[in-house]
Amino acid sequence: MHIRTIDWKNNKVRLIDQTKLPQRLAYININKAGDLCRAIKMMQVRGAPVLGAAAAFGVYLGVKDYHGNSWRGFERKLKLAGKYIAASRPTARNLFWGIERVCHAAKINKDRPVFMIKRAILDEAKMIIEEDKASCRLLGFYGAGLLKNKAKVLTICNAGCLATIDYGTALGVIYAAKDQGKKIKVFSSETRPLLQGSRLSVWELCKKGVEVVMIADNTASKLMCDGEIDLVITGADRIALNGDCANKIGTLNLAILAKYHNIPFYIAAPKSTFDLSIKSGREIKIEMRRVGEVTSILSQINTAPAGSKALNPAFDVTPHQLIRGIITDRGIIKPPFLKNIRDTLLRKECV
Amino acid sequence: MHIRTIDWKNNKVRLIDQTKLPQRLAYININKAGDLCRAIKMMQVRGAPVLGAAAAFGVYLGVKDYHGNSWRGFERKLKLAGKYIAASRPTARNLFWGIERVCHAAKINKDRPVFMIKRAILDEAKMIIEEDKASCRLLGFYGAGLLKNKAKVLTICNAGCLATIDYGTALGVIYAAKDQGKKIKVFSSETRPLLQGSRLSVWELCKKGVEVVMIADNTASKLMCDGEIDLVITGADRIALNGDCANKIGTLNLAILAKYHNIPFYIAAPKSTFDLSIKSGREIKIEMRRVGEVTSILSQINTAPAGSKALNPAFDVTPHQLIRGIITDRGIIKPPFLKNIRDTLLRKECV
Repeated sequence: MHIRTIDWKNNKVRLIDQTKLPQRLAYININKAGDLCRAIKMMQVRGAPVLGAAAAFGVYLGVKDYHGNSWRGFERKLKLAGKYIAASRPTARNLFWGIERVCHAAKINKDRPVFMIKRAILDEAKMIIEEDKASCRLLGFYGAGLLKNKAKVLTICNAGCLATIDYGTALGVIYAAKDQGKKIKVFSSETRPLLQGSRLSVWELCKKGVEVVMIADNTASKLMCDGEIDLVITGADRIALNGDCANKIGTLNLAILAKYHNIPFYIAAPKSTFDLSIKSGREIKIEMRRVGEVTSILSQINTAPAGSKALNPAFDVTPHQLIRGIITDRGIIKPPFLKNIRDTLLRKECV
Repeated sequence: MHIRTIDWKNNKVRLIDQTKLPQRLAYININKAGDLCRAIKMMQVRGAPVLGAAAAFGVYLGVKDYHGNSWRGFERKLKLAGKYIAASRPTARNLFWGIERVCHAAKINKDRPVFMIKRAILDEAKMIIEEDKASCRLLGFYGAGLLKNKAKVLTICNAGCLATIDYGTALGVIYAAKDQGKKIKVFSSETRPLLQGSRLSVWELCKKGVEVVMIADNTASKLMCDGEIDLVITGADRIALNGDCANKIGTLNLAILAKYHNIPFYIAAPKSTFDLSIKSGREIKIEMRRVGEVTSILSQINTAPAGSKALNPAFDVTPHQLIRGIITDRGIIKPPFLKNIRDTLLRKECV
């Protein structure tokens, strides 16, 4: 089954509504920047790479109805649209990267008529989609080499088709290994509070015919201790110059547990997740989400007494010392990260 | 508020139905061994120390209607009742200890009339209740010395009033510190799959006026990393001679994370949780519970696609190397555990 998370259809952004999974595969069509922003905040669309594309389309939706003719007026509108989309969620680097990409596309076309600048923005957003499809497959190819036949891989949250356009980063590695004929067993940590591991990863791995076993987040260490895990691979939301990685809350737990059990821990993320403007993970802003996500289950069952205090950071930062390698669309980056990230990402593309 | 988890009233076992919390404080009255066994399996009553008392009463319920006069016949019935209760759950040591206690009480009274042997069993079960109340308070007193004013403590599952008769082990330490005038802040890890942390610990800590903040299990490491945790204290279900401790799944995660962050990790458990017949945690039988507890939330919301595979071990084993000390009703046992557990538990009681 082919899963297409985001698309541009009939002048609208078409998204899988990820809050409805696994019960229902439902789509939403969006043609207003405000609706797109809400969809990001409510996590109807989530996952760093796909947020890059969503944000790019969001900017387009924000400027498409601009009726003036001047670049100056258009630029003001563009900046407003960019700021508006950027305010949706703070942590994933790709979201800001997507906005920067389309703003740059506009700028280099600023001497053209406004309708052509708009088209350049839309084309850039579509290009992000095509690039993501390609980069995930490349990343998957590089990562698959790490997996032996019958490998048992633990992951958290969802870094699959649903976090990208249609393939995945951490799960892209699994899909690529499967395509190479390897039999892979995935353990999916359910990922409280919003259960992306059980709701999304288990769903898509089943659809793709990959063996998957769901566990409560608490079970990770016992599995490692029992020799059930060969490798941990997760996605990332933002990667600093020194290799520190922000990802879904609980990722740091897994990285420390893997270290203790001497199990390799890998991050899988495309180039667009790297933030070369920050030196370390300390500079990454961690989104704090509403307490109700923790004191209830999907807003349906209250699990704690009414009025209970709770803390709900959506991400944590895994220090680079715990990471064996970062699987990217440019190959696997190994320590020392400070040197190797720079060398890998700043080198010219080989044409 | 005084919370009384188990009691013997009007010839029945009166239990708080812990599956109904935090929504409702409901009681169930049980006068058949079969019903008690079901209540244990369904975790209407849970928590190692209180299971000791429940099992003891369970044996009494299993023999109370025996109408013969001979010790031989009664002994057969007694053994059957013991086996029946013992089959309810495999991991908590206290459950078996409770059964052994009442069987021993019967044996030393075997030359008396059957009605007196029955009474001896019931008296022994009641004595377990009184002893637990006292031992939890002693344990709390010893443990409270570890907590400074304004200490921030992380715990998992429920090792409070609801896991004992009316006070707690890990939470007993908190209550004792509070009674000494210290202000303690507790972080309660929600404890998937059955959410004893949010449903039970948050509930009782609120009732007792202790500041408590609930977190998803995934948040533990971020909190430690942010300097929010001074100490981790959990209960235990079975402790081996070398200090290895079985406790709720996820405890091992916390112990490893605490080690990594150089935060002291303590176990709190009464003498009855120690199993001196086993040399290490490898010999502890870990209960595997039904998959539906993981693929759903409290059987109310399915979080994974229908038919998903899952693993649901109810406990994990924390190796003694990760434990700073075991807080008991005989003082805090420190490493080397093999020597000190034996010395502490096998020494004569000081009268």
